[in-house]
Amino acid sequence: MRIGIDVMGGDHAPDAPVSGAVLAFKELPGSVRLVLIGDREQIIPILEKRGANPADFDIVHATEIIGMGEHPTKAYSQKPNSTIALGFKMLKEGSLDAFASSGNTGAMLVGCMFTIKTIEGVLRPCITSILPKFKGGFGIVLDVGTNADCKPDTLYQFAVLGSLYFKNVYGNDNPKVGLLNIGEESEKGNLLSQAAHVLMKESNAFNFIGNVEGRDFFNDKADVIVCDGFTGNVVLKEAESFYYMIKKRGIKDEYFDRFNYENYGGTPVLGVNANVIIGHGISNDIASKNMILLSKNVTEAGLSEKIKEAFKAPSGVPEGETGGAR
Amino acid sequence: MRIGIDVMGGDHAPDAPVSGAVLAFKELPGSVRLVLIGDREQIIPILEKRGANPADFDIVHATEIIGMGEHPTKAYSQKPNSTIALGFKMLKEGSLDAFASSGNTGAMLVGCMFTIKTIEGVLRPCITSILPKFKGGFGIVLDVGTNADCKPDTLYQFAVLGSLYFKNVYGNDNPKVGLLNIGEESEKGNLLSQAAHVLMKESNAFNFIGNVEGRDFFNDKADVIVCDGFTGNVVLKEAESFYYMIKKRGIKDEYFDRFNYENYGGTPVLGVNANVIIGHGISNDIASKNMILLSKNVTEAGLSEKIKEAFKAPSGVPEGETGGAR
Repeated sequence: MRIGIDVMGGDHAPDAPVSGAVLAFKELPGSVRLVLIGDREQIIPILEKRGANPADFDIVHATEIIGMGEHPTKAYSQKPNSTIALGFKMLKEGSLDAFASSGNTGAMLVGCMFTIKTIEGVLRPCITSILPKFKGGFGIVLDVGTNADCKPDTLYQFAVLGSLYFKNVYGNDNPKVGLLNIGEESEKGNLLSQAAHVLMKESNAFNFIGNVEGRDFFNDKADVIVCDGFTGNVVLKEAESFYYMIKKRGIKDEYFDRFNYENYGGTPVLGVNANVIIGHGISNDIASKNMILLSKNVTEAGLSEKIKEAFKAPSGVPEGETGGAR
Repeated sequence: MRIGIDVMGGDHAPDAPVSGAVLAFKELPGSVRLVLIGDREQIIPILEKRGANPADFDIVHATEIIGMGEHPTKAYSQKPNSTIALGFKMLKEGSLDAFASSGNTGAMLVGCMFTIKTIEGVLRPCITSILPKFKGGFGIVLDVGTNADCKPDTLYQFAVLGSLYFKNVYGNDNPKVGLLNIGEESEKGNLLSQAAHVLMKESNAFNFIGNVEGRDFFNDKADVIVCDGFTGNVVLKEAESFYYMIKKRGIKDEYFDRFNYENYGGTPVLGVNANVIIGHGISNDIASKNMILLSKNVTEAGLSEKIKEAFKAPSGVPEGETGGAR
C-alpha cells in the first residue's frame, strides 16, 4: 500500500506532516510505503532531526505550493506541479492508493472533481467530523461544509455514505443514523428535514433511528448525524469555540480534552473514486500521524470501492421526492 | 403598568411563577401591578408561604391549563378559559400592558396570531435567546425556532427586529448585527445567507458588521446574530448540551455558570402588536422573576410601538431580491 502525503500543506508544514510521517512509520506494517510529496531540501533535515532513515520513505520532490488562502480552482489550475496537484495525478495514475493533505481544503476537493471524480450515482461528495461522545467513543457528523445547500436526496445519500464509512472504518456493524432536526417528531423541522426524514424512514440502506436535535451531538442517541453542510459547519465551529473557551478558562478535563481537533486525523472525502483524506489545517505532528493512519484504515477497508458497490444498488439513490426544499 | 403572568405555565408551575412574582414585586416600583392568572386556591397559599400580602397582587381566577405537550392550535381553540387564552384576551382588551408565560410556547405564539396579530409589514414574528459573552455582557441570537424556513427578506427583518430589541431594552445605542454564515467573505454561504447578506449590506436600518461564524456566538464580534430558526434552534440546544455536560463533569466555572438558562427571563415575541414575553419551560422562581422584570423593561421601552414605527418606514421592509433561497 502506498500512501501519498502532501508535506507542504497545513499551518505547521512541512515540519508537522514530515514528523507525523516519521511517527506513523513506526506504527505501520512494512507493507505500507509512505510517499512524501514536497521540497526534498526541507524534508531530509526534518527526517534526520526526527532520527528517521530517509531510505524508509519515498520522496517526490515538489516546491510549488497551494497556499491556505488561495482560491482553490484558480490555484489548482495554475499550479499543476503543486504538491496537491501532483498527489492527485499520482492517485489517478494508480501510483498511490491514498492521498492525504492538511492543506487547502478547497483545492483538495477541486482535485477530487478534476481528477478522480465523483462516484457514479453520488450527488455530492461530502466530508465528516468527529463527535467525542460524553460516555466514551466517537460519532460523526456530515456534511460539515462542502455542501451549503442540500436537497432531501442529498441528505439521504449523506446517510448512506456516513453509515458506510462508520461501518467499514470504525468497525460498527450497524451504526445508528440520525437526522439533525429541531424536534423528535417526524413532522417537525424545515422543508428539507421533513422531506429527508420521509426518504430515510422508507429506506433499509442504513439503520435510521429518526430525528436528533442540537442536544444530541455528544450523547449516544446516534453514531452518524446527518445535516446540510451549512448547519454542520456552524455546529462544528460552535463546538470548537467551546473547547477554546474551556482552555481559556484554564479548565483541565479529560472529556473536554477530547475536543482538541489538533489530535484528530481528519476525514475522507466520501463519494469520490479514490481514497482521499483531508486533515485539519492546524494539524500538529500527532494529527498528521493520525491522518496517515486514517488513510491506511480507509484504504485497507476499501471504503471507496464499498461506496461504489453500494451506489450500484438501487438503495444508493432514492426514488421519487427530491424537490421542494433546499 | 399592568403585567399579566400565567402562573400555571411551565414545568415548575404554579410555585415558580407565583414565587417569581413575589420576588419581582419587591424590586418593582409601585406603578407596576402584577396580575396573576391561575388557580386562586393554589396561588394564595404560595403567596402566604412566601410571606407576601395577596392584596399586593391582582388575581384572575382560571383553572383551565394548556399543557406543555398539547397541540398549540387545537388546545388554544378548545380552551378559551385557559390561563394563556385569558391572558391574550386581557392583553387585547387593554386591561394588560404585557403578558408573560413559561408555558406552552406554541400556544403563546398561536395566541399572538389569533388575538393581537402581527405588526403590519412584519413577515414573521420571531423569538430570541441570550448569548453570554466570554468577556462579559450578553448578545442575542434570533430566530431560535419559530421560523424553520426563512427567505432572505425574513432574515433581513430579523436583523431590524433584533437591533430594535437590543437597542431599546439592552440600552445599546448602536448594536453590531452579524449574519450567521460559514465564512467571513460576503460571497460565502448558502443561497439564503448570500442573498440575505446583500440585503443587509445595502441597508442603513441597523449596524451590519457582516458575516459571523459558528465560533463567534460568544465573542464580541456581534451583539445581535441573525439566522433562520432551524439553525438557531440547533446552536441553542448545542450550547445547552455543553452547559449540561460541564455540570455533569462537576466543573464549577463563573463564565459557564452564565449558560444556566434557568436564570434568564426569556424573550419577547418580536413583531407582534403587544408586549408578549415567553419564558423558558424549565424556569425556576429566579427565572420567573426575571421574566417579569423583562416584561416591565420591554413595556417601559415601548418596544412593540417602536417596532410599529420602524416598519412604517421603508427601511423596515427591503426592496427587491427576496426569492431564490429558502
